[in-house]
Amino acid sequence: MTDTIAAISTPTGEGGISVIRVSGADSIQKVGRLFAFKGKLEDVSSHTVHYGHIIQPSDRERVEEALVTVMKGPRSFTTEDVVEISCHGGIISVKKVLDLVLEQGVRLAEPGEFTKRAYLNGRIDLTQAEAVIDLIRAKSDRAYKIALRQVEGTLSKHVKLLRHRLVELMAHIEVNIDYPEHDVEELTTAFIQDKCGQGIADLNRLLHTAEQGKILREGIVTAIVGRPNVGKSSLLNALAQENKAIVTDIPGTTRDVIEEYVNLNGIPLKLLDTAGLRETEDIVERIGVERSRIALTDADLILLVVNGNEPLHEEEKQLIAQVKEKQSIIIVNKSDLPAAVELSYLEANVPPERIVKMSVKEEEGLDRLGQAIGVLFFGGQLETNDMTYVSNVRHIHLLKQAKQALEEARKAADERIPIDMIQIDIRHAWESLGELVGDSIGESLIDQIFSQFCLGK
Amino acid sequence: MTDTIAAISTPTGEGGISVIRVSGADSIQKVGRLFAFKGKLEDVSSHTVHYGHIIQPSDRERVEEALVTVMKGPRSFTTEDVVEISCHGGIISVKKVLDLVLEQGVRLAEPGEFTKRAYLNGRIDLTQAEAVIDLIRAKSDRAYKIALRQVEGTLSKHVKLLRHRLVELMAHIEVNIDYPEHDVEELTTAFIQDKCGQGIADLNRLLHTAEQGKILREGIVTAIVGRPNVGKSSLLNALAQENKAIVTDIPGTTRDVIEEYVNLNGIPLKLLDTAGLRETEDIVERIGVERSRIALTDADLILLVVNGNEPLHEEEKQLIAQVKEKQSIIIVNKSDLPAAVELSYLEANVPPERIVKMSVKEEEGLDRLGQAIGVLFFGGQLETNDMTYVSNVRHIHLLKQAKQALEEARKAADERIPIDMIQIDIRHAWESLGELVGDSIGESLIDQIFSQFCLGK
Repeated sequence: MTDTIAAISTPTGEGGISVIRVSGADSIQKVGRLFAFKGKLEDVSSHTVHYGHIIQPSDRERVEEALVTVMKGPRSFTTEDVVEISCHGGIISVKKVLDLVLEQGVRLAEPGEFTKRAYLNGRIDLTQAEAVIDLIRAKSDRAYKIALRQVEGTLSKHVKLLRHRLVELMAHIEVNIDYPEHDVEELTTAFIQDKCGQGIADLNRLLHTAEQGKILREGIVTAIVGRPNVGKSSLLNALAQENKAIVTDIPGTTRDVIEEYVNLNGIPLKLLDTAGLRETEDIVERIGVERSRIALTDADLILLVVNGNEPLHEEEKQLIAQVKEKQSIIIVNKSDLPAAVELSYLEANVPPERIVKMSVKEEEGLDRLGQAIGVLFFGGQLETNDMTYVSNVRHIHLLKQAKQALEEARKAADERIPIDMIQIDIRHAWESLGELVGDSIGESLIDQIFSQFCLGK
Repeated sequence: MTDTIAAISTPTGEGGISVIRVSGADSIQKVGRLFAFKGKLEDVSSHTVHYGHIIQPSDRERVEEALVTVMKGPRSFTTEDVVEISCHGGIISVKKVLDLVLEQGVRLAEPGEFTKRAYLNGRIDLTQAEAVIDLIRAKSDRAYKIALRQVEGTLSKHVKLLRHRLVELMAHIEVNIDYPEHDVEELTTAFIQDKCGQGIADLNRLLHTAEQGKILREGIVTAIVGRPNVGKSSLLNALAQENKAIVTDIPGTTRDVIEEYVNLNGIPLKLLDTAGLRETEDIVERIGVERSRIALTDADLILLVVNGNEPLHEEEKQLIAQVKEKQSIIIVNKSDLPAAVELSYLEANVPPERIVKMSVKEEEGLDRLGQAIGVLFFGGQLETNDMTYVSNVRHIHLLKQAKQALEEARKAADERIPIDMIQIDIRHAWESLGELVGDSIGESLIDQIFSQFCLGK
């Protein structure tokens, strides 16, 4: 893979700066043909920035003002020679410059191809590369921290340590196979059982974080349901406001980008059909129709809002029966008004930690709701600073595979199966973990992983 | 204005790179506190790039990987010390870094404030600054070129030359006022008439480009009307495809951003209510209702589509009567089928250059439509490469003001009004042109101009 690639690396839209990234052996020479400035791009030092104009090489017509940065390999994102062209933000401008670069025989990069090169050239391993996309897509502080830790290689470190121990174990077994006269097989079996048990325990610890990790990364898919006028839209707005304080006070962020995500106590909630909710209050009236059905079946979490100022309606009792077996919280709203709802009925049907009294109008009780969700999904424990979370489905699958292989090895040892057979299981575990960090992995799988990236990364 | 400002300069969204720009005397020192790398940011050379991590200064926790570029004034966009922090694209990441920068006592920049500083610090004049935003917003190649020429100062050059000539004229008059004994008043009056005439001619030439310039910049507001099933949606799709080839083959461009703009032969059309058009074919059925009425009154250009394979319907004749006094083109669609439409009726009502036969289905005739629009709006002449277009409403207003002042001066000279009175009119013209390039302009107007910018520019 030695050709030179280019792509627009900044998000598309109107902005102050757009950046085109070019990577490969010819990047400096090819951009040099397009860039008029005081000097010659081939002669500049690495990690320097130059002001000039992007020109049409045929007639030297100026196409754009630009700052061009040269970063020579291996001190670059891809470890190859990288040139970044920073020009006025704007769709037409950046497109014209990209076209000129491509006309020099540079290929348009595939999604994720820059990161893929960083991985293939050995600068980062596969879990780090995968975390780069999580970093970009992160919808909450916690998801971002998890991804950042993974970019820095915390998951790799765990997995590499595990692999290292398995290699030691395999070496130990190898000695016994090669020199059976030593007759330390009894010892070896106990040793295998012990080491496999340690490995399984380590894998269990990692897998234990998986469910939480996945939720923190992707958000808890949440449906807000309830009768008309119980305060569903107000709850949505109160949550969105909370969210605004955390995520969308970024100047220029359009709500669209993240409009279905809200953050509550750092837990990302992905709200189902919020647009619909804002427009209509009739979810319950149409219970049984498509939308409500989907909301109730697809959600990880159901927030059922009832009016604390009124007795329960028959349809609310039906709803409680429907949601009580699921991850759900009953929000008793309008706690600023006199209580009229049958709390005893609620408490008979739902555990107390899943009943939250709120006054959405007074913005009172949002914290308690956040805590209740935390208890429901994380047992109240939510630590990300020093913890490695496994959140990627591919990783989870491979960790489970490794665990299963070690369990089989341990079982085989228990059953006194010949150790060269046991060795095969241990090797499987070692290979699965290798695939996780990208040590032994096929090209098509690599392509599939990187195709999830955005362009220009 | 010496404080240090910062903003996110790349468009918001998911991408490979986001850039935070910091400008001001303290920018290097303040970013230096947050940036952990091999070295000290205060000590690095100008125009160099450094790899490291953005850290939380209190506990040195790593917040983000980053490339930091230092550009020391005056060799920077604002002429001040500028630091650009380039980090992983992503909403959370860039927000966290911006927050840390602001926590160091850096102020969030107003929209356009970086460009405003470039202007106030004398690096560019006002027309160049204003063209920067046009460059970013450009929706077509031609609009982009107009803006680029203006960024490079072509309009300023014209205006400055005009002002220079007016200064010469005023100096000449001054001599006559101060030394009336020379008694060259007769000569001076002829001289004034001549010079004012030249100035008016120059201003007329610039103003002549204004209508075209405005259209090229903002697009021709175009309504597609016609009975159901004559091919309105297909025309829209054919135009959009054309557009796709010109604008939206930028990887990652979402259609939303520019969905109402299409380019036909380089002329930008801003289509009215295309979403509605895709959904419904009933514009004519509801003629007289709000939407159709607005489309017909708001549009710069009306494309009335009729089916060439059928005789005209009564309602189509009514439509022709309604649109023939406007900038409109009758598209006789389905030219691949036998002609049945009464061409003689059309030709009796509309000039031939405004009747275009097409087969939208076969994508036949789009070129002719483009040409017809070119003739209608630009008399078939459309040159941008070497031409200065005036496209900004503020500029047009000031050019008209200057022209009016010169006309009054000439008239006063005709009427043998004392030349110190004439001098006042000439000075008004000179001042109006000064305001255009930003030589004598109030602070509130400056604020107003730059507030139209996007953040981070």
